[in-house]
Amino acid sequence: MRVVIVGGGAGGMTAASRIRALKPDWDVKVFEASSFVSHAPCGIPYAIEFDFPSDELMYYKPEVFVKERGIDLHMNARVIEAKDGYVVVEENGEVKEYEWDKLLIATGASPKVPPVEGVDLENVFTVDLPPDADRIREAAKDAENVVIVGAGYVGVEMAEAFSARGKKVTVIEMADQPLPNFDSEIAEIVRKEMEQKVDLRLGEKIVAIEGKDRVERVVTDRGEYRADLVLMAVGVKPNTELAEQLGVELGESGAIKVNGRMETSVENVYAAGDVAEAKHLVTGKNVWIPLAPSGNKMGYVAGVNMAGGNIEFPGIVGTQITKFHELQIGRTGLTEREAKQEGFEVKSAFITANTKVHYYPGAKKTYLKVVKDVKTNRILGAQVAGYEMVAMRTNVFAVAIQAQFTTRDLFFLDLVYAPPFTPIWDPVIVSARVLKF
Amino acid sequence: MRVVIVGGGAGGMTAASRIRALKPDWDVKVFEASSFVSHAPCGIPYAIEFDFPSDELMYYKPEVFVKERGIDLHMNARVIEAKDGYVVVEENGEVKEYEWDKLLIATGASPKVPPVEGVDLENVFTVDLPPDADRIREAAKDAENVVIVGAGYVGVEMAEAFSARGKKVTVIEMADQPLPNFDSEIAEIVRKEMEQKVDLRLGEKIVAIEGKDRVERVVTDRGEYRADLVLMAVGVKPNTELAEQLGVELGESGAIKVNGRMETSVENVYAAGDVAEAKHLVTGKNVWIPLAPSGNKMGYVAGVNMAGGNIEFPGIVGTQITKFHELQIGRTGLTEREAKQEGFEVKSAFITANTKVHYYPGAKKTYLKVVKDVKTNRILGAQVAGYEMVAMRTNVFAVAIQAQFTTRDLFFLDLVYAPPFTPIWDPVIVSARVLKF
Repeated sequence: MRVVIVGGGAGGMTAASRIRALKPDWDVKVFEASSFVSHAPCGIPYAIEFDFPSDELMYYKPEVFVKERGIDLHMNARVIEAKDGYVVVEENGEVKEYEWDKLLIATGASPKVPPVEGVDLENVFTVDLPPDADRIREAAKDAENVVIVGAGYVGVEMAEAFSARGKKVTVIEMADQPLPNFDSEIAEIVRKEMEQKVDLRLGEKIVAIEGKDRVERVVTDRGEYRADLVLMAVGVKPNTELAEQLGVELGESGAIKVNGRMETSVENVYAAGDVAEAKHLVTGKNVWIPLAPSGNKMGYVAGVNMAGGNIEFPGIVGTQITKFHELQIGRTGLTEREAKQEGFEVKSAFITANTKVHYYPGAKKTYLKVVKDVKTNRILGAQVAGYEMVAMRTNVFAVAIQAQFTTRDLFFLDLVYAPPFTPIWDPVIVSARVLKF
Repeated sequence: MRVVIVGGGAGGMTAASRIRALKPDWDVKVFEASSFVSHAPCGIPYAIEFDFPSDELMYYKPEVFVKERGIDLHMNARVIEAKDGYVVVEENGEVKEYEWDKLLIATGASPKVPPVEGVDLENVFTVDLPPDADRIREAAKDAENVVIVGAGYVGVEMAEAFSARGKKVTVIEMADQPLPNFDSEIAEIVRKEMEQKVDLRLGEKIVAIEGKDRVERVVTDRGEYRADLVLMAVGVKPNTELAEQLGVELGESGAIKVNGRMETSVENVYAAGDVAEAKHLVTGKNVWIPLAPSGNKMGYVAGVNMAGGNIEFPGIVGTQITKFHELQIGRTGLTEREAKQEGFEVKSAFITANTKVHYYPGAKKTYLKVVKDVKTNRILGAQVAGYEMVAMRTNVFAVAIQAQFTTRDLFFLDLVYAPPFTPIWDPVIVSARVLKF
């Protein structure tokens, strides 16, 4: 059996490893366009903040895959065409064809670049592959003024990185809040935190990027900002070109539609990772939320099934976390806005709590927004912000939502308690009381 | 309606508050033997460690209950007899009778004192009510050598407190490991950590406590230890005397048997808090694991039902957490030993992991022991030790166990990930992979 995997990121390499483990005699080829495999774009902001070279972002070195796992790994090999039964690859200046019996599309996602004048000037960057980290680090050395366009996760994390390194940072966001995929109560807490460290411009739209050769300023519909370095972080799009060549069906999100076995609409063609949709377990609908943990698991599932096994990826609940300096921010399930858009009749609670019992030193603030379905009392989503234990509470909600728990189930969760860790009535439990059951 | 509640701890006061909220015209009397209500024995080790007075341990001051909630609170009022329809109370030097239509026994648990010579010497303490904290703090001022008998939670937490305050601490434990209710792999990690700060004597039995008036030394079957202060932490027993007077049935554990409504075997007599059993959701059997969060919830449930409502306390999974200096230790569900005793055919995994991705600064070690039922693949229990995120992972397992999740469900949990928080493959997910599904 000849397996071809396009893309050597997390999803692709996990699948390749799995297939080789289950079918040691199969020929498994991976074509990766860059010189990195098993890479982690989510680490790029931290390569900037802590100033380490991009090759540290790789989880495993290429040798591991080649020598230990017997994968036929082609680096700097770009698949320029995908056809029924073969792919056309550009590698080492040559164009070659490779046949496949089973194909996995794991081409990931790429940053969107808005059609604005000046985006191709020197020192205008996006966050995509590990080498971007090195280019940005290099450019950051002489940059005093940094403008970040977009206050989603990448924008927020980059704003932390550059402000931690002493740059004068301006963040420009079109929406009227940072982290536009959060409800306003939580976004408001993020706004206050960000404004202490950066110049946050909300409801402002970029019009042009200007400069001779190198960027000098960013022009918006409301002002002009000096910029020695610009980071475009306005979102990502799935890399579906090859899938489209094969006639693979895309979902409403624009990413590849797959079933639980990670099969696409075309026989023997699978998709996994940031290029693929997944089922949202709250709505039952396919969504596109490209994140590393589900990307890895999709790769695992695709690998097992491509190797003749049978395993289903059940779906996701959209669990996410980020931080801006000391403030941690997490979410899982649906926001109130999303739940209403999905047609749920919702009730929500917003609570402020301390992270420890009153007498234990060092308690910090935390904020929870929790949304329930009025008809069933089922927890639809939760957002958590605060200065510690945000990952913990977001995960508690994530598991509870995955278990389809109601507010009553939530109230009766048997969670950890000891004075150094939490209050006796954990804020999660309190939110269940507030939401009633 | 006349409600009498015996015991003003967490369970009793939660019930009293609930009844008054639902039935504002009912007469709700609480009799509390001490001068503290809503107190937290779990805070006593920290009152020692951080040296603050015991009244800070109260969650709410008595006035809150009396003035805001209209509870007829009797402090320093000991119920010396409970009879069908009335209780006999000793208060202010007088003995009085009070009638009840509904009675809640919330008398809690008290430390066991082993029948050893010298336990009544000066400076020999147990950890029970808040005033103990003040007495121990006072005695600790002049104490150089502290001996702690028992290395359960209280023993471990007191060992932290005294060693943090610069005392020379000896901990004597009969079992061959600290935290005897953990499996040996995790206990071994605790042992190593404790031995860096205290003299830990395992498999050693106390024989006598000696001294003129004041304690001077502790004698065991294997040695003798100088002691200016001795702390007995060998476990607790439920305070069931009044329940027994009423003919209330006790469970196998010796604590009061209750149903999900917190009703005892005697009509109109309820029990809640540390004196009552609860159903273990893994085994379906009644167990006695007296801890504050379930005690509070039992009080809530008893209060609602006593006030004419109908709500069931579903049970517990035995979630617990503690720490010794930097090492955090949590558990939920059954240990491997317990699962085998319960007749499960088990498979377990013990894994060591880092708490963050490899390139993010400050990753720490964490250790997981996870137990599954071989027949159903259901997660039966988990124990977590480590230097951060132990509460988070213990809670993830707690919710997963409460949801009766299998290893496959666990593998597909959609948990938070970002480089500052966790590795991409969270150790919880890794444990599911190791346990197979």
